[in-house]
Amino acid sequence: MKAVRFQVNGSVVQGKLDGNLVIPLAESSGAQEYALEAGRLLAPVQPTKVVAIGLNYRDHAEEVGLPLPEEPILFIKPSTSVIGPLDPILLPRMSARVDYEAELAVVIGRTARNVPKDRAAEYISGYTCLNDVTARDLQQKDGQWTRAKSFDTFCPIGPWIETEVDPSDLAIELLLNGEPKQRSRTSNLIFNPFQLVAFVSDVMTLFPGDVIATGTPSGIGRLAPGDQVEVRIEGIGSLINVVRNSDE
Amino acid sequence: MKAVRFQVNGSVVQGKLDGNLVIPLAESSGAQEYALEAGRLLAPVQPTKVVAIGLNYRDHAEEVGLPLPEEPILFIKPSTSVIGPLDPILLPRMSARVDYEAELAVVIGRTARNVPKDRAAEYISGYTCLNDVTARDLQQKDGQWTRAKSFDTFCPIGPWIETEVDPSDLAIELLLNGEPKQRSRTSNLIFNPFQLVAFVSDVMTLFPGDVIATGTPSGIGRLAPGDQVEVRIEGIGSLINVVRNSDE
Repeated sequence: MKAVRFQVNGSVVQGKLDGNLVIPLAESSGAQEYALEAGRLLAPVQPTKVVAIGLNYRDHAEEVGLPLPEEPILFIKPSTSVIGPLDPILLPRMSARVDYEAELAVVIGRTARNVPKDRAAEYISGYTCLNDVTARDLQQKDGQWTRAKSFDTFCPIGPWIETEVDPSDLAIELLLNGEPKQRSRTSNLIFNPFQLVAFVSDVMTLFPGDVIATGTPSGIGRLAPGDQVEVRIEGIGSLINVVRNSDE
Repeated sequence: MKAVRFQVNGSVVQGKLDGNLVIPLAESSGAQEYALEAGRLLAPVQPTKVVAIGLNYRDHAEEVGLPLPEEPILFIKPSTSVIGPLDPILLPRMSARVDYEAELAVVIGRTARNVPKDRAAEYISGYTCLNDVTARDLQQKDGQWTRAKSFDTFCPIGPWIETEVDPSDLAIELLLNGEPKQRSRTSNLIFNPFQLVAFVSDVMTLFPGDVIATGTPSGIGRLAPGDQVEVRIEGIGSLINVVRNSDE
């Protein structure tokens, strides 16, 4: 199932996408179906936090010249950084270099705390695409990654939660203005989604809708105003955003 | 005013503390007053995020051997780390060294985005005490601070929001089992609360109840099971927690 949040006629519908139709889920009020073009897709989740993993593809760790981590390296992107499909990524005046990072996102389905790896699948509602937008200059300046990763609009998520895909070996790609820039497979992840749910939930409680961003492969590069940036994951779909300068 | 969240008879009351009485605020249903000992104080806020500042006292930067930052260094403590007065800090099995860090906490009162420094006071509802509990070994191992700072129970906040105090030169102390361990004044902050609200709100939107933890002075040290740890700030009050091993 492709689980969506859909804005139509001034309200938000939780639904599933069937071809070009959004079918409200039982919990939603009203059983009317909507044509996709009658409204717009929102970020499919409203996480209380996005827990992101650094250096989780071998090729990317080599690219930035850092040793492979023994354990996952965590950082948090705040809920205020989340945007949905087609929403603009705003380049802040505080940074002179903002990069894209294509990532597979794990969506938590049940409150998760100290979950063993072999039961992690029970706590995952599905997978989606995520762009871990990063102010590369501030990441290098600060040492700590939080500021660089936390600007409003720096966490596009979507277009939907795919609930039935096997995440173990999916092609992941980033396209900038249609041109491939990152290309890998999730089989190259150092820590897989089940290991990550176990590890992160040993540190902090995860709530339904919380997201684990699993890290980016090599090929990172910069965004400019007017760019169209696309994260495409096999078996899931395509998350497209546009890039603009912030007015502020 | 000392603004409290107070749990009594199975419900939560937003109130103000007057001597030993909790007086519900107008917005709360029921105008009954409660004796403080009839219930218990909860963390006075439920932040969507706690944005914390590293190395913001000159003496602490020297203590850990790091240069003074040119700009505030940010990290995020998740909402799941927040606990209230007298709640237990749980020492995770994943760490062999957990430290206290006494901090002045700024509580946001209005949605804040791109707030200029000279208007920051309008966006602050008050101040409280915060203990930025830190797994020191994991902080050093990871390089990134997020894991070390994000365990459940690692962010005691309270006992109330003091809405009328001037934060510019308050004595701040940490007492471990009654013995002073940290002692400084908020006049030693490198970046003051108004500068921090301006800086952080240039990065990310802050919501009412969100918290900025302003950093810790020198004298950090470790916690052991059975300890009682107290953050005391002049003109605000005293935040006391106990320390236990996690069962998990």
